[in-house]
Amino acid sequence: MTETTETLEHRLSRIHLALEQEHLEKVDDVIADLEPAEVALLLESLPPNERIRLWERVPQEVDGEVLLHVHDEVRSTLIDDMDHAEIVAATSGLDTTDLAEIFEDLPQLVAEDMLRSMDELQRTRLQETLAFEEDSAGRLMRTDTIAVRADVSLETVQRFLRWREAVPDNTHSLMVVDRNGLFMGVLSLARLVANDPEQAVADLMDPEVDSIQVAMKSRDVATLFQTHDLVSAPVVDDQGLLLGRIVIDDIVDVIREHSEQALMNMAGLDEEEDLFAPVLPSAKRRAVWLGINLLTAFLAAWVIGRFEDALDQLVALAVLMPIVASMGGIAGSQTLTLAIRGLALGQISRTNSNWLLRKEVGIAALNGLLWALVVAVLAVLWFGSLGIGVIIAAALVINMLAAGVAGIVIPLLLKRVGIDPALSGSVVLTTVTDVVGFMSFLGLATLFLL
Amino acid sequence: MTETTETLEHRLSRIHLALEQEHLEKVDDVIADLEPAEVALLLESLPPNERIRLWERVPQEVDGEVLLHVHDEVRSTLIDDMDHAEIVAATSGLDTTDLAEIFEDLPQLVAEDMLRSMDELQRTRLQETLAFEEDSAGRLMRTDTIAVRADVSLETVQRFLRWREAVPDNTHSLMVVDRNGLFMGVLSLARLVANDPEQAVADLMDPEVDSIQVAMKSRDVATLFQTHDLVSAPVVDDQGLLLGRIVIDDIVDVIREHSEQALMNMAGLDEEEDLFAPVLPSAKRRAVWLGINLLTAFLAAWVIGRFEDALDQLVALAVLMPIVASMGGIAGSQTLTLAIRGLALGQISRTNSNWLLRKEVGIAALNGLLWALVVAVLAVLWFGSLGIGVIIAAALVINMLAAGVAGIVIPLLLKRVGIDPALSGSVVLTTVTDVVGFMSFLGLATLFLL
Repeated sequence: MTETTETLEHRLSRIHLALEQEHLEKVDDVIADLEPAEVALLLESLPPNERIRLWERVPQEVDGEVLLHVHDEVRSTLIDDMDHAEIVAATSGLDTTDLAEIFEDLPQLVAEDMLRSMDELQRTRLQETLAFEEDSAGRLMRTDTIAVRADVSLETVQRFLRWREAVPDNTHSLMVVDRNGLFMGVLSLARLVANDPEQAVADLMDPEVDSIQVAMKSRDVATLFQTHDLVSAPVVDDQGLLLGRIVIDDIVDVIREHSEQALMNMAGLDEEEDLFAPVLPSAKRRAVWLGINLLTAFLAAWVIGRFEDALDQLVALAVLMPIVASMGGIAGSQTLTLAIRGLALGQISRTNSNWLLRKEVGIAALNGLLWALVVAVLAVLWFGSLGIGVIIAAALVINMLAAGVAGIVIPLLLKRVGIDPALSGSVVLTTVTDVVGFMSFLGLATLFLL
Repeated sequence: MTETTETLEHRLSRIHLALEQEHLEKVDDVIADLEPAEVALLLESLPPNERIRLWERVPQEVDGEVLLHVHDEVRSTLIDDMDHAEIVAATSGLDTTDLAEIFEDLPQLVAEDMLRSMDELQRTRLQETLAFEEDSAGRLMRTDTIAVRADVSLETVQRFLRWREAVPDNTHSLMVVDRNGLFMGVLSLARLVANDPEQAVADLMDPEVDSIQVAMKSRDVATLFQTHDLVSAPVVDDQGLLLGRIVIDDIVDVIREHSEQALMNMAGLDEEEDLFAPVLPSAKRRAVWLGINLLTAFLAAWVIGRFEDALDQLVALAVLMPIVASMGGIAGSQTLTLAIRGLALGQISRTNSNWLLRKEVGIAALNGLLWALVVAVLAVLWFGSLGIGVIIAAALVINMLAAGVAGIVIPLLLKRVGIDPALSGSVVLTTVTDVVGFMSFLGLATLFLL
């Protein structure tokens, strides 16, 4: 019975200290107790130098499993540190599904060599797996399924399993197929052990089980697992031929990655981004997003520039204008975030988007009026001008309404033209709220105050 | 074999149309084919009126399961629509764990009545479950564990299971306990069926399995399931007494909720927020966040106000100042998002935070210099003043460096004082980048240009 109470943070301190003091046997002690996924997380939590030193202490027999569990970007840094023979050794123990996940990250020469070193069957299997689209059920599927026939008795199934002596990890059910390999249903081990051995598989199997088409997108597979509370599911081709099974531990990773994606994308980051990536590549990747933002910032500046006269005559306008833009930006990003989550879950469609739009306009009107009043009072007290108060209140209401509309319309439009709203929604949104904010405030001031 | 190819969007359209045309039997057809979790998602995707009309068509026998699957906020709106008897009927089929999740959302009177209608055993179980902290293993655990003794043979275990005739859903393994109920290990059904029936449980059980302390936080349980690729795990008290088991389908929900939390919190939203909540409560909840932002916006305005003279003399300053603030805000939020994800995963600790800080400062310096150059050239071209170009370039570098530092330091500080960095990090960050941006640009201009 293992107690796993040590936190990652504590482990990190131990590893850090051990590496610093060159106590390599202590490093080995920490690693020895860990699952490959935990070693992967440790590696991802270390700066490049320490990461490589830890990686060199990871026993070769778990190298392959660890490589599987790290993010793509971290994986390439680890592979870069390995020589040809080490890579071949590390990956030789992996099954086809796992190997396929790593294969495309391998250096060309290593990949070719690996293909040559495989036997005919392994090579065919790998090539078949690689032929499926990335992010499809075919890539997630394992082929170590145990299939039985519907017309045999439970007794026969048990004899067969005892003859095999072992069943693959995480086998919770057997697949039932007909004479031609067509999928018929599932016999759970729970039913196998709890029923009279004389009964036939056909009487006890569940024929209503959801089977997954091999081309199904992995995010749809994940949704199916979540909504149907599945632990494993059969994968079939379009003729209904049983190809393999998908098990929930592979799906858990898909779920986590998809959930993280929106968070990272909204800041213009890749969800595979390595926290401890070196400065130069990180700076390069982020520069793109900053450049796009600079364009929109200049657009806002250009709008302000149209009102130089007003700013020249009334310096209070320059002082107060960022408030209008900022409140619109915050209100808009609240709406946008809700819409992005709703779109990711498939909850927003043409049938309810109008209702949502009206709701967000209603919220914007209420909050716009509330905070416009507060801002107006403060502005009047500060600058002693009733006009300024009225103008900023009006501009704030206008901008918050624009933010509410933009927060719904922008992600829907982006989605329709095939752009990920999480990735570009916020930059488009703040452009709208900045431009509308500055234009309404300075425009109204020009019309009514000068 | 069920084919589940219809998307949520398509189902929504069908439901919407059927409700609009009052074709209630068509509504029933759609619902009949769905799992409770799918009905829950449909309900969450409908505006209040349609939601209630759909809810009234959901067959009573699945009401309880559907209530379990909707978010807290949606659940209360559905419960509000049910009368006393309906609630009691809907929840009577739920097991203790599920009932505990809903129980605290029930109206006081219904809850009391329900407790009275239970038998002694049920009531005790429910009260025991409610005594565990929310978000702890005790709340996630199911008590329908099948326990066997280590000294019996597989044959005896099989006879026992056949005598029971059924084992609970999602049973993948049996728990092995000693005479006193102390947890000893796990016997997977896979091993049970694949081995010689004469063998003893003790020889085949896995004693190295991770057991979960009943008080463990649910997010730590989720991490354990992910890193150890678990499907189910035993729950024990601090004496090692077996209390129950946790199964992965309950963990999948925990994983998804935790991943979504950061995204929602960064926009000042609650992750339980109902996309179709009515206007007034939504406006109220979001008002808080807008009010906090207003305070910080006024702080930035106050900083600008200190430089009224400069703005009065040189209107170009008012035009260009939002660019400096905006670029700092974007750069800072890139760093902040990475840091928030790293903190959520436990990847950032005292041992590596200095390295991270240096990395982010390095990135900020590179991108600061790059974009400062671009901004300077554009500013010189626009306003024909070399001085303006130099000043804005310097201010931009200063603000981006401040953003890089703040993006790491703010979430670490917030975490240390026990505030969720995802919830408040971005408002503190933009305050810093606004204040530093305006102050450095207008301050340098005052010193060198006037």
